[in-house]
Amino acid sequence: MRRILVIGIGTGHPDHLTLEAIRAIGDADVIFVPTKGEDKAELADVRRSMIARHGAAGARLVDFAVPRRQTDGVGYRQGVDLWHAEIADIHEGLFLDHLAEGEVGAFLVWGDPMLYDSTIRILERVRDGGRVAFEVSVLPGITSMQLLAARHRIPINGIGQPVTITPGRRLSEIFPQTAQAVVVMLDGEEAFLAVEDPETEIFWGAYLGLPQEITIAGRLGAVREAIVAARAAARARHGWIMDIYLLRTPASSSAA
Amino acid sequence: MRRILVIGIGTGHPDHLTLEAIRAIGDADVIFVPTKGEDKAELADVRRSMIARHGAAGARLVDFAVPRRQTDGVGYRQGVDLWHAEIADIHEGLFLDHLAEGEVGAFLVWGDPMLYDSTIRILERVRDGGRVAFEVSVLPGITSMQLLAARHRIPINGIGQPVTITPGRRLSEIFPQTAQAVVVMLDGEEAFLAVEDPETEIFWGAYLGLPQEITIAGRLGAVREAIVAARAAARARHGWIMDIYLLRTPASSSAA
Ligand SMILES: C[S@@+](CC[C@H](N)C(=O)[O-])C[C@H]1O[C@@H](n2cnc3c(N)ncnc32)[C@H](O)[C@@H]1O
Ligand SMILES: C[S@@+](CC[C@H](N)C(=O)[O-])C[C@H]1O[C@@H](n2cnc3c(N)ncnc32)[C@H](O)[C@@H]1O
Repeated sequence: MRRILVIGIGTGHPDHLTLEAIRAIGDADVIFVPTKGEDKAELADVRRSMIARHGAAGARLVDFAVPRRQTDGVGYRQGVDLWHAEIADIHEGLFLDHLAEGEVGAFLVWGDPMLYDSTIRILERVRDGGRVAFEVSVLPGITSMQLLAARHRIPINGIGQPVTITPGRRLSEIFPQTAQAVVVMLDGEEAFLAVEDPETEIFWGAYLGLPQEITIAGRLGAVREAIVAARAAARARHGWIMDIYLLRTPASSSAA
Repeated sequence: MRRILVIGIGTGHPDHLTLEAIRAIGDADVIFVPTKGEDKAELADVRRSMIARHGAAGARLVDFAVPRRQTDGVGYRQGVDLWHAEIADIHEGLFLDHLAEGEVGAFLVWGDPMLYDSTIRILERVRDGGRVAFEVSVLPGITSMQLLAARHRIPINGIGQPVTITPGRRLSEIFPQTAQAVVVMLDGEEAFLAVEDPETEIFWGAYLGLPQEITIAGRLGAVREAIVAARAAARARHGWIMDIYLLRTPASSSAA
């Protein structure tokens, strides 16, 4: 049987690896490394240096190109579906060509595999294809959400209260109507600009765990413009940005 | 200036410590160890063995008794408020009596400090008291939620969908009305029994990361009784239980 390890590696800080993740990187015979037409060269560097530091001496690195997601003429879900199908075919080929029976292959996943990551879903598709058998183990890693909370020294929930995690494009449906504390990820469109109440609290962070890390916190009315400006400046400077933030309604922050 | 480290230690598995957490345990001059009238002796053992393995040779361990939360004649929030005030007084005394200026004190927090943990809030209260000055650093750790997802090899969110984390007693207000994927923690009352649709999917785990770990997954209609039985048997055997689960509506699981 082949074994596939899905290893959460944190969001850029080499010391956020767990002992288990380090051991798993060292156990891999083959490490599959996605190459995504790297505008985000720093992220590829993070992976490479973890492999250099913790990988076994004889481990093989197998690069593969991640196709682009089709967005023209298809809805969001259908686009994702086609894209996952395409990647699953690529993975299947990788396993058949590069991983012998009894060997261990690994994917290094940014943050934690449980949160807005498709690696697990794609492996399910490969398995459902039925042409290659393998076992999967998932190893947790520190997510960007945890680092956001740690940097701001806050819990994400109010006492005894729920908290919701959402992609930016769903924010307006839920906040502040049904969710009073929300962690927003995957926000290409500065969804916080559409939040009306200036007393809303925001805890924002970009490039968390990386050398260029930035954080800003305060009432939306007071810091909204500062965040927009910091985002624009950082994006211009680095060529890309990854950011995440927690929003709390005034009522929930006073209750927190 | 005194420094206080709030260190996430994961939920029992020694290899879920990050390199950063290990280094931080080693940096502490004083480690503050709560003693809670230990029915959960295993949990105290986990902490103790991490300290034995990673603590500095000269580090001092300072035990302190955590008072019980008053529940008679006060509402939930007021009870928590009084309780935190009481613990903050204890912490203040600990810092003044046991931590010299320039020294580093540490608290080892179960899982991650961001999630249903009061350490950060209590430290804020001590600081607001104004009688002892200190800096706080928070170091993330693997939460029970991450381990739940890893063991079941699932993401917690549907593709492009929000996911809510909630204490058990708030579940019925939000699921399935406003949240279609929910991680339930702190559930003393088997809140999943009140969920009606038998096609709801549940991914359940208890004692995650500990030797007695148990997991069950399936449609609620099929596995509800098995979970109730497993919980009762495990609790009888070990004297305590900590469990967590993810619920997904049938619509959201087919979309996942
Ligand atoms: C595809 S999701 C992957 C999340 C990842 N699995 C995790 O656990 O953090 C990418 C989103 O995660 C967040 N993110 C990831 N890394 C980040 C970082 N270093 N700083 C801030 N946000 C980050 C951003 O919201 C980004 O849009
Ligand atoms: C006071 S909260 C602390 C959560 C912790 N900060 C974390 O990050 O997991 C305690 C709740 O966490 C969950 N929990 C903690 N450790 C667990 C474990 N090892 N297995 C299952 N659930 C656990 C349970 O829902 C429990 O009621």
